[in-house]
Amino acid sequence: MEKVLILGHKNPDTDSICSSLVMERIAKIYGIDAEAVRLGNINKETEYVLNYLGIEPQRQITVAEEGQKIILVDHNEAPQSIDGREKLEVIAVIDHHRIADFSTSMPLYYIAKPYGCTSTLLYEICKKEGLEIDKTMATLMLSAIISDTLLLKSPTCTKKDIEAFEELEKIAEIDAKTYGLDMLKAGTDFSMYGAAEVINLDAKEFNEKGKKIVIAQVNTADIQDVFTRKEELSFEIEKRIVDDGLDLFIFVITDIINSNSKIIALGTDKELAEKAFGKKLDNDDAMILEGVVSRKKQVAPQIIDAI
Amino acid sequence: MEKVLILGHKNPDTDSICSSLVMERIAKIYGIDAEAVRLGNINKETEYVLNYLGIEPQRQITVAEEGQKIILVDHNEAPQSIDGREKLEVIAVIDHHRIADFSTSMPLYYIAKPYGCTSTLLYEICKKEGLEIDKTMATLMLSAIISDTLLLKSPTCTKKDIEAFEELEKIAEIDAKTYGLDMLKAGTDFSMYGAAEVINLDAKEFNEKGKKIVIAQVNTADIQDVFTRKEELSFEIEKRIVDDGLDLFIFVITDIINSNSKIIALGTDKELAEKAFGKKLDNDDAMILEGVVSRKKQVAPQIIDAI
Repeated sequence: MEKVLILGHKNPDTDSICSSLVMERIAKIYGIDAEAVRLGNINKETEYVLNYLGIEPQRQITVAEEGQKIILVDHNEAPQSIDGREKLEVIAVIDHHRIADFSTSMPLYYIAKPYGCTSTLLYEICKKEGLEIDKTMATLMLSAIISDTLLLKSPTCTKKDIEAFEELEKIAEIDAKTYGLDMLKAGTDFSMYGAAEVINLDAKEFNEKGKKIVIAQVNTADIQDVFTRKEELSFEIEKRIVDDGLDLFIFVITDIINSNSKIIALGTDKELAEKAFGKKLDNDDAMILEGVVSRKKQVAPQIIDAI
Repeated sequence: MEKVLILGHKNPDTDSICSSLVMERIAKIYGIDAEAVRLGNINKETEYVLNYLGIEPQRQITVAEEGQKIILVDHNEAPQSIDGREKLEVIAVIDHHRIADFSTSMPLYYIAKPYGCTSTLLYEICKKEGLEIDKTMATLMLSAIISDTLLLKSPTCTKKDIEAFEELEKIAEIDAKTYGLDMLKAGTDFSMYGAAEVINLDAKEFNEKGKKIVIAQVNTADIQDVFTRKEELSFEIEKRIVDDGLDLFIFVITDIINSNSKIIALGTDKELAEKAFGKKLDNDDAMILEGVVSRKKQVAPQIIDAI
């Protein structure tokens, strides 16, 4: 049978990597010759998960052959997906984001629910289909939920995420709080990265009404720690804006301990950030957003509505 | 709680009407204040179903208030949906068609599977969620499956449709073959309709790469019966092309007994039909398509690929 590739989004986060690995296992149960691949580097947080499990990162790809069958997890928007996707055949999507300009020529499986994490949806599918969840699958899904919900503290976290978290914690035989805090902390260490890498660690592109926008996010235990690198970060952001013809780049620095964020907004449309959040950018082109931790719920929709 | 409207597509067929009525019942089980509405007249086939069950047709609407929460069943494409949908909030989609230019600003429930009928998916949801299916719900879903799969004979019919059909037949306590044939036959009687109505009974609009296309379909027990009205039908089709600025109108007359179709193709892009099916239109702008009964699988994708 034809091989099916399973893809998370560009700049993959823990949910994209873990959910694609779990989806590969589910597909195989159904006799599908599936392979989870990735569209970018593994970040430090995800590296912590894979090291814990002793799993090698999946193969990285940048293009696929015309007509290649693919399953998308944790995304659907074209700018966040594999380049040239219009020439591939999407046979399934498992996601928890808004849907944007999504098109196919044939019917497909599209399962999306407004949960905090793709893995919560995969957990639900396993339960409903009566599929066995082994310790590895449970750890992968649990890690994705911890990552996307910041240990159940994000406003994106739903009852379904909490239920899945509790069940998976038992199967994985992990103290999820301790494990999760270590995992999240591992993701806040990017001292080894240059500024160009930092702004791209978890960057998502949105095309809305002709506006090209990137919203990047990093987690930290201390916002000031990251903000001291503001000059080199801004330099790289400005470079990216010119190189990719962006209208706006928002860099979100999220304090995972106190659940606040500081954003830096650059680009000709930076006043969209002011409109979106109803306050002025300071002299550093920055503003504090109290209680904001979720790009998906507390940043992206506000910016999109401001357009 | 805010009321949620449940909508099938314009020119509703039996699946759109029955699935919206079943979805209303499912939503109510979850405590949602839901109301199934419709975007057009009930056709003769669906009338047979509602008469059998003693159910009044749901309320018809053409517009909804800005911000109205809606659930879509049996469609997702904007031209087939309620006018001004971009100002409404789609909270869920249950569908079995390809996805085209679909966008939301927030995450939502989107459950689509490549089954022959939306009601098959609703049946599956009821089973997996442990919801009780009463006789009325079973008859509605069974009727939708009979309609969309032409009594399991269409190439769109999947194993899942057959399974649902068999289970629902038992719950509905109906001899589905006899009931189904009567139901389908009721749908082939449109002698009482003017030509303008006939071409619009089950017409779906597709916008693809700037081309505006309508593919309409009628079922019959005798193609010649319908084709004798060719002159008045063509007149109305040409009128519709001018009025709506269409590039192509394809009228599909499907013989549900012998599983063949004859199509009439009109409009400046009528050669797309020749390209799509690899044969020439005759002097009546018509061609026979042997074994073709499904617009979704055997007509629309071919035309879309030809563009």
